[in-house]
Amino acid sequence: MAKITVNKDLASERAKCEFNVEELTNYLDGGRENTARRRRMEDKVLSVKELRDEIPEEYLSHKEKYENAIRKAVLFYKVQKSLDDPNQSDHERIRNSYRSTITSAIFKDNSPLTLHIVMFIPAIIGQGNDEQREYWLKRAKNMEIIGTYAQTELGHGTFLRGLETTATYDPATEEFVLHSPTLTAYKWWPGGLAHTANYCVVMAILYTKSKNCGIQPFIVQIRDEETHMPLPGIKLGEIGAKLGYNTVNNGFLGFDNHRIPRDRMLMRNAQVSKDGTFTAGANSKLTYGTMVYVRVLIVNNMANLLAKAVTIAIRYSAVRRQSKLKPEDPEPQILDYVTQQHKLFIGIATSHAYSRTALWLWDHYAKVTSELNAGKLDNLPELHSLACCLKVLSSVDAAVFVERSRLACGGHGYMLSSNLPQTYGLVTPASTFEGENTVLLLQVARSLVKAWQQMLNGRQLAPSMAYLADQKQLDRWDGSVNGIIRAFQKVARGKLAFSVANFEKYQKMGLSREDAWNKASVQLTAAAESHGRAIVVQVFKTETDRIASSLSPPLRKALDQLVELFTLYWALERLGDLLLYSPLSEVDVRDMQARYEELLEKIRPNAVGLVDGFDIRDEILNSALGAYDGRVYERLMEEALKSPLNAEPVNSSFHKYLKPFMQGKL
Amino acid sequence: MAKITVNKDLASERAKCEFNVEELTNYLDGGRENTARRRRMEDKVLSVKELRDEIPEEYLSHKEKYENAIRKAVLFYKVQKSLDDPNQSDHERIRNSYRSTITSAIFKDNSPLTLHIVMFIPAIIGQGNDEQREYWLKRAKNMEIIGTYAQTELGHGTFLRGLETTATYDPATEEFVLHSPTLTAYKWWPGGLAHTANYCVVMAILYTKSKNCGIQPFIVQIRDEETHMPLPGIKLGEIGAKLGYNTVNNGFLGFDNHRIPRDRMLMRNAQVSKDGTFTAGANSKLTYGTMVYVRVLIVNNMANLLAKAVTIAIRYSAVRRQSKLKPEDPEPQILDYVTQQHKLFIGIATSHAYSRTALWLWDHYAKVTSELNAGKLDNLPELHSLACCLKVLSSVDAAVFVERSRLACGGHGYMLSSNLPQTYGLVTPASTFEGENTVLLLQVARSLVKAWQQMLNGRQLAPSMAYLADQKQLDRWDGSVNGIIRAFQKVARGKLAFSVANFEKYQKMGLSREDAWNKASVQLTAAAESHGRAIVVQVFKTETDRIASSLSPPLRKALDQLVELFTLYWALERLGDLLLYSPLSEVDVRDMQARYEELLEKIRPNAVGLVDGFDIRDEILNSALGAYDGRVYERLMEEALKSPLNAEPVNSSFHKYLKPFMQGKL
Repeated sequence: MAKITVNKDLASERAKCEFNVEELTNYLDGGRENTARRRRMEDKVLSVKELRDEIPEEYLSHKEKYENAIRKAVLFYKVQKSLDDPNQSDHERIRNSYRSTITSAIFKDNSPLTLHIVMFIPAIIGQGNDEQREYWLKRAKNMEIIGTYAQTELGHGTFLRGLETTATYDPATEEFVLHSPTLTAYKWWPGGLAHTANYCVVMAILYTKSKNCGIQPFIVQIRDEETHMPLPGIKLGEIGAKLGYNTVNNGFLGFDNHRIPRDRMLMRNAQVSKDGTFTAGANSKLTYGTMVYVRVLIVNNMANLLAKAVTIAIRYSAVRRQSKLKPEDPEPQILDYVTQQHKLFIGIATSHAYSRTALWLWDHYAKVTSELNAGKLDNLPELHSLACCLKVLSSVDAAVFVERSRLACGGHGYMLSSNLPQTYGLVTPASTFEGENTVLLLQVARSLVKAWQQMLNGRQLAPSMAYLADQKQLDRWDGSVNGIIRAFQKVARGKLAFSVANFEKYQKMGLSREDAWNKASVQLTAAAESHGRAIVVQVFKTETDRIASSLSPPLRKALDQLVELFTLYWALERLGDLLLYSPLSEVDVRDMQARYEELLEKIRPNAVGLVDGFDIRDEILNSALGAYDGRVYERLMEEALKSPLNAEPVNSSFHKYLKPFMQGKL
Repeated sequence: MAKITVNKDLASERAKCEFNVEELTNYLDGGRENTARRRRMEDKVLSVKELRDEIPEEYLSHKEKYENAIRKAVLFYKVQKSLDDPNQSDHERIRNSYRSTITSAIFKDNSPLTLHIVMFIPAIIGQGNDEQREYWLKRAKNMEIIGTYAQTELGHGTFLRGLETTATYDPATEEFVLHSPTLTAYKWWPGGLAHTANYCVVMAILYTKSKNCGIQPFIVQIRDEETHMPLPGIKLGEIGAKLGYNTVNNGFLGFDNHRIPRDRMLMRNAQVSKDGTFTAGANSKLTYGTMVYVRVLIVNNMANLLAKAVTIAIRYSAVRRQSKLKPEDPEPQILDYVTQQHKLFIGIATSHAYSRTALWLWDHYAKVTSELNAGKLDNLPELHSLACCLKVLSSVDAAVFVERSRLACGGHGYMLSSNLPQTYGLVTPASTFEGENTVLLLQVARSLVKAWQQMLNGRQLAPSMAYLADQKQLDRWDGSVNGIIRAFQKVARGKLAFSVANFEKYQKMGLSREDAWNKASVQLTAAAESHGRAIVVQVFKTETDRIASSLSPPLRKALDQLVELFTLYWALERLGDLLLYSPLSEVDVRDMQARYEELLEKIRPNAVGLVDGFDIRDEILNSALGAYDGRVYERLMEEALKSPLNAEPVNSSFHKYLKPFMQGKL
């Protein structure tokens, strides 16, 4: 790297950091080798000049943005391909790349080829029989075809059984007839579907011998391989501009009695024979696996996006000077305001909490998957519930703390050159995609209520729910991290007991089970949320203790401070719950508040070191406010000057409209 | 209006509404005549075809968006001008137009001429002497010149004394020399400054006879009136793309020893004579008035934007059907889920709360202003504190509930055709502009701490703080709305007492007053927030009681339910505070929770009627999800088809990049 001049405030922050930043980076990456591998990959990708934009994306028209994204996507794919390590298994590759965010250096708004990799290929692997895998995977992995995955419809999302697209088997021609009976049956949302993909895995209700055989997957060609024209009987287009992800090319897809050969149904699980006989799959629960996998990725992604936002905000807060603390002193760094520390340090801790939790969940997932392959399904429901819960909490918290980071940068955070608004644009959809958050919380609540009843029947509970069986009240307040974790468990247990009681009360009052459930659902979701909080704090604490034991004392101390900050922050946020369900007193509240403020003070000198430790390169941060050198104002101006409006001193609209108007001639 | 076919679910919602929707609209508008006037204005503006966009703004490039905005801005100005009622005073006009949101039908992202009207002209009125008013107002009101207001600098925002731009008086030529000594001194942010305005009110530090005479206003020509070229010594441009407000044309401005005549200093308050003698203004507090005025407008604007978001989300929730409540029933309207009601009804209530509060504050402002003109300044500090406080709370709440409305629409809320993301883009900057929220809360805290000390000295407090003097604890929990309001006051008082105690404790521990203040600031801002909550609930209750007394019983009942919902919602949100500072018990908490759920049930049949009552026309809502007719899916598709990407079945990037790539030739 060329020598750079660093803003002097940032330099002095770095000088006073109490731990070794490189050690922190290695800890986050899971070892020195992983750090080195990640950096090599970043160097390689960033050395390709054609992958950089001369004019920032935000100045292009919607159509130009897409065309530019395709240009870069094919190039990016080739560079990535050249970096694949053939000696790594898929599992290793994914686990080792959890901190890789290089894609966002190339696409502020993601790539139109993402769904091909993340959904199309896995769907073939998961749902295709051996023959289908053999044929389609080869074509897909060679990029001879580009695919996507179409499940959601214009009128139907989380509730799978509501899908309307039909696939009716015609034994006369041995074909399926795909049809969209209504406008609401149109597929809507799949990335790459609009103008990029020529194949697509389509989820549709199978009808054979006049019987509804449930939702099944079909691989469907949608565009001609030579001309790229949509095939007859297929209506395709893009769904329009969005808050973010605009270069992903989300599309719609409608069928007008479109016929496909029988072998295009993916038949790993269920099958239809030539004469139309339907054979059901062995276990429908196996499809849970993919959903869980995607949700683990989301938790991890939330941690990475939050790390990005908080890196930008902390560095900016070290450079920005504003107002007066003392009349005789110069304007202080805004990072010296305790209110600013209160806004931002929790973001650092939260990113750590979810990246730890994501890895823990990933290992849990791997274990349950290998059990599944051995035919053991016992631990699947708990895993499913955990993944739902953690997807919800991580997406909610990341959205809140990314926005808080943006707002902590004042007006400048509103500028796209800060890259904070776009980061929010990538974080917030996680609250509604891959299972809408409230629906997921209600699923978690369902698993908790079930566990509650099992407990009453004296049965053993899954490990993450075992605390529900402990009926003993806490006899005194214990303000240690472990003590607060136990109090959080009491809160979750208390809220669950309360909502179960209400659920039962409503039934006794004459409501149906379903209406009673609905009526209690505000409290049930609150109980599920509390359960999730208890888990995240505990996993963060336990995993940090386990992995950080071999670290140097200064780093260990810094990490312990983050765990404690995270715990105290949530205890103070949930005072009402703790006052109701634990022996917390007013004096204890005062004490926690004072400890929280002391912690902010202790973390303050390490704040820049902590975000430097995330080791997010300037090209990935993409932010005038957050670059390593802290040249905030110079970069803001440099970015502004890239606006095409600044290429001309006078815009043509002056002559056309403004001047005649001012002269009273319009 | 032409006859329209309304979605049958929406039609049946309307049939079951228990009050007269038109009566609600008149109540919100402040009378039948105001409703009629507003509608006439809307009809007139919307009848101008050229003001509508053929291609939605979001598909244009940044530059095209600006050019299109200028085209419409001059036209819109003329139409508006033709609607001015010469018989109305400014005060009446503004008060009567508080529910007018027609601008947003024309500009999703606001107009580049807004600052001319909202800041440039008022600055001349407020700061110019009679001669200057006479000359400049005529030119400005005739639109012979277009101006803006430049205060904020690249490196300096809320803290006025930190500004760097200098205006040095040169008695030899009787000119001021304007200069930007550094990059951070560049003016940054003013709307219209980049390519639209040719004049500008500039705030700069005045130096005369080598003395710093503080920040003063100057009217500066920045572009040639004929050619629109920036004048020599002036650097101008736009600051770049933003999260929203992209058509507002925010700009930067730097001076290189640029000279202007002496009479360009606006001299209503301070003056500089020909020989350079400086005369200070009579009372610098008078400038508070304008800040308060702008903050009142913000509170009102937040209420209007929230009304828009919640109208969209409630109508969509009545049309959207998803999942199952009962196996045998069809998919229910999502509005039937209690969790959905919990997300949205508070948004309706909050919009009502802030539109009431804004009017109350406006009348308060008018009263204090007339006192000011009579030389009485006593009530100014309280007004200032109230305006700060209500600006903060309304901007925070509106942002939260607008986002909640968007997320309650699931994935479709992420689409720009919902207009929900853009609505958030207009709401969220209110948290940082016109006084950053945390800075304002600390100002409120300062006024509260001062009041606290006055109270200890036995002095009488301003009416909105009088409750601080009541030292009596509540002896039992009173769950009525008025009882909860009193409890909120106890919370505010308790939190203030606690933070004052800490502030003093830190000083006794040896910290300077300033460091102690900083260390206590997390709690001080929390106390200020609680004070604001107490005020909003009380004003909402009192003003609704006062004004709604003449309404029909069914509407009155519906409004009372909103007041109660708002009160209970915040009580449940602030349980920890209430448990600490009021005699609330666990049983009372259960009771409130049950009442809250019952209220949701009672409001449910009126939900669509309540948002219909906001009477926001489809052209203003600009939303495929929220239109009056509920043709949600048809409109989503119609909007999608407007994307220029959909004009061609195959995008050129296929031939250029994708095909060679898929054939392995790239």
